[in-house]
Amino acid sequence: MTQKIGFIGLGAMGHAMAGRLMDAGYILVVYNRTKEKADDLVKRGAIFADTPASVAQQTDIVFSMMFDDASTEEATFGKDGLATTLKEGGIHVCCSTLSLGQARRLLEQHTQRGQKYVSANVLGRPPAAQAGELFVMVAGEEEAQKHLEPYFKTFGSRIFNVGSDPVQANLVKLSLNFMIYSTIEQMSEVFALNEKAGIDPKTIFEIMTNSFYTAPVHKNYGKLMVEHQYDNAGAPVTLGLKDTKMFMDAGADYAVPLPYASVVRDRLLSAISAGDANRDFVVMLERVRQEGGLKKENTEK
Amino acid sequence: MTQKIGFIGLGAMGHAMAGRLMDAGYILVVYNRTKEKADDLVKRGAIFADTPASVAQQTDIVFSMMFDDASTEEATFGKDGLATTLKEGGIHVCCSTLSLGQARRLLEQHTQRGQKYVSANVLGRPPAAQAGELFVMVAGEEEAQKHLEPYFKTFGSRIFNVGSDPVQANLVKLSLNFMIYSTIEQMSEVFALNEKAGIDPKTIFEIMTNSFYTAPVHKNYGKLMVEHQYDNAGAPVTLGLKDTKMFMDAGADYAVPLPYASVVRDRLLSAISAGDANRDFVVMLERVRQEGGLKKENTEK
Amino acid sequence: MTQKIGFIGLGAMGHAMAGRLMDAGYILVVYNRTKEKADDLVKRGAIFADTPASVAQQTDIVFSMMFDDASTEEATFGKDGLATTLKEGGIHVCCSTLSLGQARRLLEQHTQRGQKYVSANVLGRPPAAQAGELFVMVAGEEEAQKHLEPYFKTFGSRIFNVGSDPVQANLVKLSLNFMIYSTIEQMSEVFALNEKAGIDPKTIFEIMTNSFYTAPVHKNYGKLMVEHQYDNAGAPVTLGLKDTKMFMDAGADYAVPLPYASVVRDRLLSAISAGDANRDFVVMLERVRQEGGLKKENTEK
Amino acid sequence: MTQKIGFIGLGAMGHAMAGRLMDAGYILVVYNRTKEKADDLVKRGAIFADTPASVAQQTDIVFSMMFDDASTEEATFGKDGLATTLKEGGIHVCCSTLSLGQARRLLEQHTQRGQKYVSANVLGRPPAAQAGELFVMVAGEEEAQKHLEPYFKTFGSRIFNVGSDPVQANLVKLSLNFMIYSTIEQMSEVFALNEKAGIDPKTIFEIMTNSFYTAPVHKNYGKLMVEHQYDNAGAPVTLGLKDTKMFMDAGADYAVPLPYASVVRDRLLSAISAGDANRDFVVMLERVRQEGGLKKENTEK
Repeated sequence: MTQKIGFIGLGAMGHAMAGRLMDAGYILVVYNRTKEKADDLVKRGAIFADTPASVAQQTDIVFSMMFDDASTEEATFGKDGLATTLKEGGIHVCCSTLSLGQARRLLEQHTQRGQKYVSANVLGRPPAAQAGELFVMVAGEEEAQKHLEPYFKTFGSRIFNVGSDPVQANLVKLSLNFMIYSTIEQMSEVFALNEKAGIDPKTIFEIMTNSFYTAPVHKNYGKLMVEHQYDNAGAPVTLGLKDTKMFMDAGADYAVPLPYASVVRDRLLSAISAGDANRDFVVMLERVRQEGGLKKENTEK
Repeated sequence: MTQKIGFIGLGAMGHAMAGRLMDAGYILVVYNRTKEKADDLVKRGAIFADTPASVAQQTDIVFSMMFDDASTEEATFGKDGLATTLKEGGIHVCCSTLSLGQARRLLEQHTQRGQKYVSANVLGRPPAAQAGELFVMVAGEEEAQKHLEPYFKTFGSRIFNVGSDPVQANLVKLSLNFMIYSTIEQMSEVFALNEKAGIDPKTIFEIMTNSFYTAPVHKNYGKLMVEHQYDNAGAPVTLGLKDTKMFMDAGADYAVPLPYASVVRDRLLSAISAGDANRDFVVMLERVRQEGGLKKENTEK
Repeated sequence: MTQKIGFIGLGAMGHAMAGRLMDAGYILVVYNRTKEKADDLVKRGAIFADTPASVAQQTDIVFSMMFDDASTEEATFGKDGLATTLKEGGIHVCCSTLSLGQARRLLEQHTQRGQKYVSANVLGRPPAAQAGELFVMVAGEEEAQKHLEPYFKTFGSRIFNVGSDPVQANLVKLSLNFMIYSTIEQMSEVFALNEKAGIDPKTIFEIMTNSFYTAPVHKNYGKLMVEHQYDNAGAPVTLGLKDTKMFMDAGADYAVPLPYASVVRDRLLSAISAGDANRDFVVMLERVRQEGGLKKENTEK
Repeated sequence: MTQKIGFIGLGAMGHAMAGRLMDAGYILVVYNRTKEKADDLVKRGAIFADTPASVAQQTDIVFSMMFDDASTEEATFGKDGLATTLKEGGIHVCCSTLSLGQARRLLEQHTQRGQKYVSANVLGRPPAAQAGELFVMVAGEEEAQKHLEPYFKTFGSRIFNVGSDPVQANLVKLSLNFMIYSTIEQMSEVFALNEKAGIDPKTIFEIMTNSFYTAPVHKNYGKLMVEHQYDNAGAPVTLGLKDTKMFMDAGADYAVPLPYASVVRDRLLSAISAGDANRDFVVMLERVRQEGGLKKENTEK
C-alpha cells in the first residue's frame, strides 16, 4: 500500500523535492498559497489541500519548505497551521532555512503537542533537487531520522546526520550560507586592491580558480564579481543580510565571537545604503571598490 | 651554444626550479649560503660561485629565490650582491615573496644601474616545481617577459603576465597567500560555532568539501584544522603574520581598506601571545575555539 | 486641584523619579510587581493599584520605567496592561531603554487605540534622579512634549527635545550607552598593550584622566578597570550585550555600518564564554588582556 | 655658573619648549633646518649651531623635537648628526613621537656609543608649552630622569615616570594619540546613525558633552565634527594614519590584538581614497556618513 505524505511550500525548491517524492511512488498531499504552482503535481496525482491543517489531517509525515521564519510560523502554528491537526507522533520535517530561535520554537511547540519535529536542510539548487542530488543535513531524534531516510533519498544523493537536536541542521545550513558571503568579502578585498594596483581582476580570478581556489564558491561568485554582474543573478543583498543576521544570532546563542560575520554584515548594510538592496549580493564588491576609491562599476556594458 | 644563467637561493623551492632549468639544458651558475644544498646540482654540471656577485659576473640573467626582504636585499645590493656586477641590460628575475616596498626598491635601484628587474612569483609547492607544474605570475617590461618565457616554461605549466610593473606580481602573490589565512579564519569561525553547538566539525568539514567548498584551500587546511594537526605541518604563525603584514601594507600603499586582513592579523597576534608562534598557522582555529569558550585542543592522543 | 498621574515600575530609578513627582505635589497612582517597593510612596500619599490597567483607569498620563522590552510589552499590552484601559487621548510616557522595534510597536499600537505615546529616556543614576538632575531626552508629538514638560522638570535638570518620532529618544539613549562600552574597549586595548610593555596601567590612567580624557566615562570605568574591580560594580556583561544588540539592530534598521559596535559585541560574547556573564561589563578588559597573553587578573588580594 | 644645553628642532612645539628653558636661565645652543625659526631665540641669547653635531659638541644634554622617525634618524645618526659628537655619558633627550622601532634603534645606537638616551614625550599644544603646562612622560634610566627633572619642569606642569625603558614613553604617547582617533570613530558611528534617524547630531553632541562625555577629546573634536569643519583645523588624515600605523606596529611588537585600531586604519585609508588625505582627520566622520548613505557634507555655507 502506498503511503500518503504531506508537502507544504512549493517554491522552486519545494516543488522539485515534491516531484522527486512522487517519482518514487509516494502519494502527496500538497499545499501552497499560490495554488497554480501545484497544478502539474496535481495532474500527476497529488492531492491539493486548502490549508496546511488539511494536509496534516490526511498524513502522518509533513514536509515543509517555506521562505522564512514568519511563513514557517504561520504554516505551522497559524490558525490553519499544520500543528493544529497533526496527530500525536506525527512528524513535521522542516526543510526551510530558519533562525535557531524559530527552530527551537518549532521543537518546543511540537513536543508539547506530542508531535515530532525533524530539521532537514538541503544544499544545492532546484536542478540538483530534480536530479536527486541534494545534500540533506538532518537533525532530530535518531529513530525519526531512520524512518525518514527513504524519503530523503528520493531527492538527496547524500544524507548527513548532524545531530539529535533539530536546531543543529539549521546551524549547519546557516554556516554554509555564511561561507558564501564571507568568500565574497574575501575576494572583494583581493579584487579591489589588485584593480587599484592596475592588475585586471579577471587575471587574478583566472589564477585563483586554476590553483588553490577552485571551488564552486570561488568560480561561480568570482565570475559574477569580475564581470560586475550585479543584476541578473540569484539572491539579493537583503537575503544575504537576513542569513548573516541569523548566523550572528547563532553566534550570540552560543557566545562565540564571529568577527568575519560582522564585517559581512556591515558590508551588506552599506550596500543597502547605496541603494543596492535588491541587487545580487555579489554587489558587495562594489562597496569594497568604492571605499577603496575605485570608480563606480562600469555601466557602459 | 648553451646559455649560462644564474640562480641564487637553493631552498626547497629554489632548488627544484634550478633543477628544472638544468633538465632543460641550461648551464647554471648557482649560489647558496649553505653550499651543501648545491652539491647535487654541481654533480650534474652546475657551477658554484662564491658570492651572488660572482654569479652575476658570469651570467646575463640571474634568478633569485630568497626567504624574505632582508635576504633579498643582502643578496642583491649587499657588499657581494648581484647588482654590484650584473652588466648593463642584465636581468634580475626575482621569485621571492616580497613586500611591495622591497620590490619597488629593487626596481628603482636596478633601473638606476641600467639593469632590468622582473618579478616572477610562483604558486605551488616544491613537488609541483619538480614536475614543472608551477603557476608563474610575471610582471615587468613586456620585452623582458617575452625573453624569459622559455625559462619559465621549464618549471611552470602556466605563465601569467600580470602587468608591466614588477611590483604587480608581488601583489598577486601576497593576495593569494592572504586568501589562505582568510579561508582559515572563515572555517575557524564555522568550526568553532558548530562545535560549541554540539556538531562534530568533521561532519561539517565533510559536507563543505563535498559541496561548494571543494578547493584545495578548503580540503588541505580544513583537514589539518578538524584534526587539530597544529604541529607537523608546513608554515608557522610567524610566516602568516609576515605575509599578512605585507598584504596590509599593500592595502595602505593603495589606500584600500582590508577589514578581513585586520581580523587575520589580530588572530595571528593572539596565537603568538598564546605561545603558538612556531606552530602551523592553522592553529588560528585554537584561538577562535578558546575565545568561544571551547576547551583547549585535545592532547590526549 | 491637584492632578493624578500614573507611574508603573518602581525599581531604583523609577522610584526616585516617582518620588520627585510627588515632591512637586502631584498625586501618584503607582504599580510595581513587588508591592513592597511602593510602601514608602504609599505612606507619603501615593495610591497603589493592583495592575497597570488599574493605574491607567485612574489617570490620563502614565509613566512607565520597566527593565526591558518584554516587561514593557507585558505592562502595556498584556492582559492587565495599561493600554487596555488608558482613555483616548491619554499619554503613555515610556522611560525604559527599549529596542527601536519595541518602541515602534508601542507607537503603532497606542496610535491604533487613539492613545498617545511619548518616549522620555533619562540619563543619570538614581541619586541624580533624587536630586532632580537627570537629563531627559524626549521624543514624540510636539504638543504632548510641551504638556509634559512640568513633569519632566521635577526629576530632570535638562530637557532635550530630540525629535517628533518617539523612537528617536530611544536611539539617543542606546547611542549614549554604546559609548560606554566602546570607551571601555578603547581603554582596554590601551591598558593591555601598555601593561604588556611593562607600563603600569594606573600610570597611563592617571595621565589620561588628567589630560584629554577627563570625562566621567573615562574616570569611572577606567578606575574600575585598572583596579580589576570586576565584581562589586553596577551592570553585568549580559546587560552590555543586550544594549549592544539593540544598538546594532538600530544600525540595521537605518542601514548604517557600525564596526566598533561589532567589536564590542564579540568582546562581550567572549566574556560570556569565559564565564563572566554576571560580572561587571568592565571585565571586557580581562578578555583583551588574556588575548594579548597577559596572565589572568590578580585574585591574590 | 649657568649650564649650556642643546635643543634641536624648533617647530611650534620645540620652539615653545626651548623658550621655556631659556626663561629659566639656561643657555641654549640650538639648531633648526630653517634657521629663521631660531631668530628670536638667538636675539634672546641662544647660540645657533650649523649642525646637530655642532650642538652636541658644545653641550652635554641635547633635547630633540623632530617631526618623525626619518628626521630624528637624520638629526641623530646622519652625517652631521648629534650622535657623532655627543660625548660619552652625554644625554640625548628625545621628545618626538616615534615608532617603537625607531626608539629602540636610538637606545641601541646611543648605548653602543656610550651615550645615554631618554624619551620625554609631551602632551599638550604649543600654548600649553609656553605656559609651562605640558604633561611630560619620561622613560629611561632612573638616574638620568632625576638629573633631567629641573629641565622638564620648565615646560611641564606634571612629570610622569613611565618606566626605565625609553621606548615606554613612546608607547604611552602613541596610545594617547590613538585614543583621539578612536574617539572620533566612536562619535562618527553615533553621529551618523542618529543623523540618519532624523536626529540632529548637534543635539546629541550637546547631550553627550553635558553628561558622561565631557572630556576635551569629546568637546574639541566633536564640535569640529558636527560642524563639518574638515578644513581649517590642525592635523591631517595622513598624520592620523602614521600614528595609527605606529600604534598597530607596537601591538605587533607585543603581540596584542587591537581591533579598534584596525577599524581606524581602514577608515583613514578610505578617507585618503576619497581624496581627503590632507584634510583634518575628523573627516573620518564623512566616511562613516557616506557608507551609511548620508549625503555628502554640506558645502553650502
